[in-house]
Amino acid sequence: MILSGKKVIMIGDSITDCERARPIGEGKGDSSLGRGYVAQLHAMLEATYPTLDMRMINMGIGGNTVRELKTRWQTDVIDLRPDWVSIMIGINDVARHYNRRLMKEWHVSLEEFETTLSALVEESKAAEIQKIVLMTPFFIETNPNDQIRIMTLEYGAAVKRISEKHGTIYIDVQAAFDVYLKHHHPTELAADRIHPSQTGHMIIAREWLKSVGYTWL
Amino acid sequence: MILSGKKVIMIGDSITDCERARPIGEGKGDSSLGRGYVAQLHAMLEATYPTLDMRMINMGIGGNTVRELKTRWQTDVIDLRPDWVSIMIGINDVARHYNRRLMKEWHVSLEEFETTLSALVEESKAAEIQKIVLMTPFFIETNPNDQIRIMTLEYGAAVKRISEKHGTIYIDVQAAFDVYLKHHHPTELAADRIHPSQTGHMIIAREWLKSVGYTWL
Amino acid sequence: MILSGKKVIMIGDSITDCERARPIGEGKGDSSLGRGYVAQLHAMLEATYPTLDMRMINMGIGGNTVRELKTRWQTDVIDLRPDWVSIMIGINDVARHYNRRLMKEWHVSLEEFETTLSALVEESKAAEIQKIVLMTPFFIETNPNDQIRIMTLEYGAAVKRISEKHGTIYIDVQAAFDVYLKHHHPTELAADRIHPSQTGHMIIAREWLKSVGYTWL
Amino acid sequence: MILSGKKVIMIGDSITDCERARPIGEGKGDSSLGRGYVAQLHAMLEATYPTLDMRMINMGIGGNTVRELKTRWQTDVIDLRPDWVSIMIGINDVARHYNRRLMKEWHVSLEEFETTLSALVEESKAAEIQKIVLMTPFFIETNPNDQIRIMTLEYGAAVKRISEKHGTIYIDVQAAFDVYLKHHHPTELAADRIHPSQTGHMIIAREWLKSVGYTWL
Amino acid sequence: MILSGKKVIMIGDSITDCERARPIGEGKGDSSLGRGYVAQLHAMLEATYPTLDMRMINMGIGGNTVRELKTRWQTDVIDLRPDWVSIMIGINDVARHYNRRLMKEWHVSLEEFETTLSALVEESKAAEIQKIVLMTPFFIETNPNDQIRIMTLEYGAAVKRISEKHGTIYIDVQAAFDVYLKHHHPTELAADRIHPSQTGHMIIAREWLKSVGYTWL
Amino acid sequence: MILSGKKVIMIGDSITDCERARPIGEGKGDSSLGRGYVAQLHAMLEATYPTLDMRMINMGIGGNTVRELKTRWQTDVIDLRPDWVSIMIGINDVARHYNRRLMKEWHVSLEEFETTLSALVEESKAAEIQKIVLMTPFFIETNPNDQIRIMTLEYGAAVKRISEKHGTIYIDVQAAFDVYLKHHHPTELAADRIHPSQTGHMIIAREWLKSVGYTWL
Amino acid sequence: MILSGKKVIMIGDSITDCERARPIGEGKGDSSLGRGYVAQLHAMLEATYPTLDMRMINMGIGGNTVRELKTRWQTDVIDLRPDWVSIMIGINDVARHYNRRLMKEWHVSLEEFETTLSALVEESKAAEIQKIVLMTPFFIETNPNDQIRIMTLEYGAAVKRISEKHGTIYIDVQAAFDVYLKHHHPTELAADRIHPSQTGHMIIAREWLKSVGYTWL
Amino acid sequence: MILSGKKVIMIGDSITDCERARPIGEGKGDSSLGRGYVAQLHAMLEATYPTLDMRMINMGIGGNTVRELKTRWQTDVIDLRPDWVSIMIGINDVARHYNRRLMKEWHVSLEEFETTLSALVEESKAAEIQKIVLMTPFFIETNPNDQIRIMTLEYGAAVKRISEKHGTIYIDVQAAFDVYLKHHHPTELAADRIHPSQTGHMIIAREWLKSVGYTWL
Repeated sequence: MILSGKKVIMIGDSITDCERARPIGEGKGDSSLGRGYVAQLHAMLEATYPTLDMRMINMGIGGNTVRELKTRWQTDVIDLRPDWVSIMIGINDVARHYNRRLMKEWHVSLEEFETTLSALVEESKAAEIQKIVLMTPFFIETNPNDQIRIMTLEYGAAVKRISEKHGTIYIDVQAAFDVYLKHHHPTELAADRIHPSQTGHMIIAREWLKSVGYTWL
Repeated sequence: MILSGKKVIMIGDSITDCERARPIGEGKGDSSLGRGYVAQLHAMLEATYPTLDMRMINMGIGGNTVRELKTRWQTDVIDLRPDWVSIMIGINDVARHYNRRLMKEWHVSLEEFETTLSALVEESKAAEIQKIVLMTPFFIETNPNDQIRIMTLEYGAAVKRISEKHGTIYIDVQAAFDVYLKHHHPTELAADRIHPSQTGHMIIAREWLKSVGYTWL
Repeated sequence: MILSGKKVIMIGDSITDCERARPIGEGKGDSSLGRGYVAQLHAMLEATYPTLDMRMINMGIGGNTVRELKTRWQTDVIDLRPDWVSIMIGINDVARHYNRRLMKEWHVSLEEFETTLSALVEESKAAEIQKIVLMTPFFIETNPNDQIRIMTLEYGAAVKRISEKHGTIYIDVQAAFDVYLKHHHPTELAADRIHPSQTGHMIIAREWLKSVGYTWL
Repeated sequence: MILSGKKVIMIGDSITDCERARPIGEGKGDSSLGRGYVAQLHAMLEATYPTLDMRMINMGIGGNTVRELKTRWQTDVIDLRPDWVSIMIGINDVARHYNRRLMKEWHVSLEEFETTLSALVEESKAAEIQKIVLMTPFFIETNPNDQIRIMTLEYGAAVKRISEKHGTIYIDVQAAFDVYLKHHHPTELAADRIHPSQTGHMIIAREWLKSVGYTWL
Repeated sequence: MILSGKKVIMIGDSITDCERARPIGEGKGDSSLGRGYVAQLHAMLEATYPTLDMRMINMGIGGNTVRELKTRWQTDVIDLRPDWVSIMIGINDVARHYNRRLMKEWHVSLEEFETTLSALVEESKAAEIQKIVLMTPFFIETNPNDQIRIMTLEYGAAVKRISEKHGTIYIDVQAAFDVYLKHHHPTELAADRIHPSQTGHMIIAREWLKSVGYTWL
Repeated sequence: MILSGKKVIMIGDSITDCERARPIGEGKGDSSLGRGYVAQLHAMLEATYPTLDMRMINMGIGGNTVRELKTRWQTDVIDLRPDWVSIMIGINDVARHYNRRLMKEWHVSLEEFETTLSALVEESKAAEIQKIVLMTPFFIETNPNDQIRIMTLEYGAAVKRISEKHGTIYIDVQAAFDVYLKHHHPTELAADRIHPSQTGHMIIAREWLKSVGYTWL
Repeated sequence: MILSGKKVIMIGDSITDCERARPIGEGKGDSSLGRGYVAQLHAMLEATYPTLDMRMINMGIGGNTVRELKTRWQTDVIDLRPDWVSIMIGINDVARHYNRRLMKEWHVSLEEFETTLSALVEESKAAEIQKIVLMTPFFIETNPNDQIRIMTLEYGAAVKRISEKHGTIYIDVQAAFDVYLKHHHPTELAADRIHPSQTGHMIIAREWLKSVGYTWL
Repeated sequence: MILSGKKVIMIGDSITDCERARPIGEGKGDSSLGRGYVAQLHAMLEATYPTLDMRMINMGIGGNTVRELKTRWQTDVIDLRPDWVSIMIGINDVARHYNRRLMKEWHVSLEEFETTLSALVEESKAAEIQKIVLMTPFFIETNPNDQIRIMTLEYGAAVKRISEKHGTIYIDVQAAFDVYLKHHHPTELAADRIHPSQTGHMIIAREWLKSVGYTWL
């Protein structure tokens, strides 16, 4: 199997973090991997493939944008020498344009986002990380005219461009949520449209598994 | 689908409970269903079948034996009028023979276990609950000579007898763990061999889904 | 002035409550009136009209629907013998259709809402409360197709009908928020589109003051 | 409007502070601006002028005298490059002459007060801060013979002299309180005659708004 | 000595209470008698007269007016069969006219105060309590025109009338504070002019000792 | 009066400390001076001599021996420039010979005690501190054969020798306790015979006042 | 062995209690038996005789005198149907004569002590409890003239008389401590001379074991 | 006696630590020596030999392997100049091969274990520590095929080799537990088979005492 014997770092913002252990989100404690999609897909893989022998490490930090990922890429990814790295970033980069509208020094523009994320992918390849997974940010909103949704889609498109340029695995998380949202009001998944329920995390976990080639329920 | 539109009560001991909400383990909060196999399989079903419209309710209480289930069966199961009820009970009935060996008033004999559980199934059928799921208790131990394991298997056999007598769904949870334990030391799943990690809960969740007819990873 | 020397009860759900004192939300403590629109408009009236001598009492309780208001109307309103009562209720009646979609026993239908609220107004008049203020529920959402917004507007319309039938003061809080939302994304006022920031509470307070005849900033 | 698009720093002692966020009192959290007059006037301006786009930052620190303001003026005001700065300081400078009477090293004399505050205004102008608001300290006491009241008035007179010399906006907060106190015992506003209730804070907020040219209720 | 071998109950409001033990403020713990004047005068008497063998019991309860004393006089005084009872009550009876001005149901009028306190003295005499000490309430304020001070003096005069009528020991606590306040601003003794510092409590303790005939420092 | 206008530092171990404020035990808070004899005698002096204008500062630290006093004498006494310093030290120096009998590195011998304390007095005089008060350590024990009592008396005798050599005020605290103990079992004052009750602290305070020339109760 | 297969209740005051589990001090938790002599001797017996199969239950309650034992003897001893009961009571009965000297209603006289304890033994025999162990109270004090020691010895003598009259096992705990105290100051075992260190508890445990016939270290 | 007048350091992992005092596990507090076998055997020795005058110091730290012991050997053992050192280490070295199976950087191989422990013994001898006690690690498991038990026995054998090579006292703790486990299920001693109950600790303490030559119960 593709993940067999691999060390996999999952990095991102609060959606990845979910109360993971510090300083390294790996280990014996039940919440070492947090309480979100990372813990779920790890448990699903372990339960299904008892001989997989994959190490999964959660390095998400709540509130991060791609700008913070950059400052800690060396220590939190490269130095840990993973075989895989999976990145889901961007919702804070986007949302601060709206929830901290006047604090422009906190905003990460599309250009900065794309340039920085692209550089992180290049650094990772230079460090001979074998597989890179790029996940789009998402906003749990069905209104096509919603400004955050529109902007999130633009940042997601940048993720896709980077993925195509560098030949990484690409996961369209927003699209996965959109399927579910055809039948449910956003509030069922996330009161604030950003931090999903266990079901929402499972939507992410399921998409990750499918995207890396594992069949699922 | 078989669970479509159904109200399902999951009942049992600490393994089912896992910090579920009180008094009823259902609702909006992220830990309403607890943090164990109930929450996992609910999230998996919801994420995969957006139109399933199943209500799942966790009524587990830590430390319960079948004796306590009996005292609360009317209020905690019958009165809630479920379509399904899923029961996993027995490890406390067994383990107290060993970890509170001299406190015999706390022990639940095999006979009391079988008689009581059988009566609960009958009450449930009399109350027109459509489907009943009986899960074996389990002990995360590979030694065939271990006394708790041997006794747990006996109580599990009683669960099977009841299941066959009453035509319920039957889940051999111990067998599911045994597959995993071919490749791992018990301590990887549970320091105390009773309370499993997220991976252990996922083994239960996966077996539950398979047993009620859902294909899985 | 119209409120001069009056005893005014403000009642409703979490938006009114805002950590008010128990059992009666009145008194010397700085948070006796909570931290929301009730405290704001009380402070504004007191600061502007030093001789107003109005008693304001906050009786909001988080999570209430009109169904809960009914059960406590006698003790929490009538028995306190107010001159005025101001009611803002309905968002929980509506939102549970979506955030607890399958728990139908928690939903309050439009018919039950209108009948119950109307009865409370009648009871209040029978108890010779001089002035009744009816405020619409609101959902901080700009999408005209959003289901909760649509349903909230319907419940707001019921509030208007009751107001007209009984000759009460009527405040269209949703309309007040809509003015602000022409220029801002909903997330600036409320991450969950229900519980507003201080600015959002001030929008309510301002509308209340205008509606009862006080000019403002 | 005069505050349109401006960045405004509010600085002072505990009356300004009121549990504001650290290190910078600005942002998304509901208490980023504290729970006093700063939060109130910000909410009032935002609610009334949806397109104002003003940034308000609370940099108050409880217990400060003008001596502490001096030590942090560069980092807490100048470095943040505001368009406006509003200062309310002096009650600790005064009160310690009485509540820590023998600890003379804690007292700030009228001369030190005036010299230091004047220097801070000059520094601010040199840093091209466009508007400076100087607010008098206040003591919520009606007795004309009260020593703290008398001394507070003297320090307030110094604030006025500095304001006139430098052409700043001047707010006589003491006078605003005196109007209210014609009709109320001081204890209604502040048990300790220094830290006002929400109504007291609103008196300050109202005066600030009037003084910078906004009409009000 | 006059107090030799006596059981003395000290009763009153928060100034007497001062974190005394519940339900009975007597015993071995260091704060059994609270941290105010009761503890001080007890320690002074014990330290000076090692053979005094007096039992002192603190039955103060914060927030009490004479109205609450009445409801608990039987259980908290009579049933304990003291030889002496010392009462300091009245500041809450007075202050609520000002700090909860509009909540008239909380006010205790001069008439109710005098009637009730007088009745308590009569009950005490009927129960053969040998000595009764009546202490005036006090307000730590020097302004002769202050309304609370004026009203406190009136209630203190009622205490004196009752004392004279019933031949009790009378202690003019207000007068004792007034001596100190000739040289100090009230804020040195009590920020809120009601709850004194250790020095303020010692002024009360000293007066109590002098009034019952002990010479002092 | 002798203490008029003076700055007095009280230093010692836990009996002096008693939860005093840090870093300097002086100020507005009610427990700035702790809850022991320092706070008591300060309150007694203040209450009796309203114009005394004495500054009292508590610099006791629990667990100190004369060895620790030496390490902090410069910063905690000399640098604060007091007019008076009052020292009560020695019980830890003694008691550790018994309660940590085998941990000899913790013991302070009589010689070290006397030499060090004498040096501190000399340093204080060199720094022109006007008055020095030396208090004996004490052990609340009546048995003349008790080893800790015997040793405490020896250390107390050293205090007396130093006092006589340097002409300081000398207070025999042990003797003051012995008077009280003629009539009481030690357990009435101190369960552990070291940390006294409020009455015990008052015995110390009373002796201090008498020794510096104030008459008392 | 004598204790083989027996159910043994240990009852008494705080020295027995030592944070035992409530309501019954037996079970799986590490502190079910508390942290004192009961836990120690239970562990020693279990570790030495793996097949002893003795149930030990700690029913001590801090602060108890024989008077409280009487009120709970039926529920806390008889109803649990023990084979043995071990009682250590009396130090509170004695000590309150000294540490709460004036609160005579708290004192238990020698007569009441002897009568009550004797009755409890009779009740126990009537209930067919096979073995009764009576332990003397103790006071960790070497001074033969100490009043509490003298009185404790008198109460211990009463324990001995009862033991002889009823033929119970008798343990002279005071004598065991006295051996140790020949070489150590009391403060090494107990700062307050009542609550012993682990070593002190072991002295009790050792004596208990010896007295019931087990040889020891 | 062999331990008479000696200073003995007990070092190891969580089983030794048991909440001992920091930084040095010695002193007056009741839990200075922790709550495990160190505290037990210290109390037993003290209670039996009142004139032993042995200093026992607990320097265990939870989670330690021999690798961590090495980094702190100088400061935590050599610098304290003990006469004896007793070491129980190895269960974490072993168990991490199983409970953190994939985190190979956390594993301590048998070779590293033996080399390091041997070096620590040599260092200790070089520092002239008189007696060294080496205790085997243990796993409370009866299954001879259990991998952790097998591996623990191998590490225990290495302890024995080192002991023989250097002539230290050797304690086979595993063998002591095995005796008890002939009659009990492991869960009676330790739910996780590593951290024993008080009875389990007593098994260790008893073995330690026997191995150093003290007879016991």
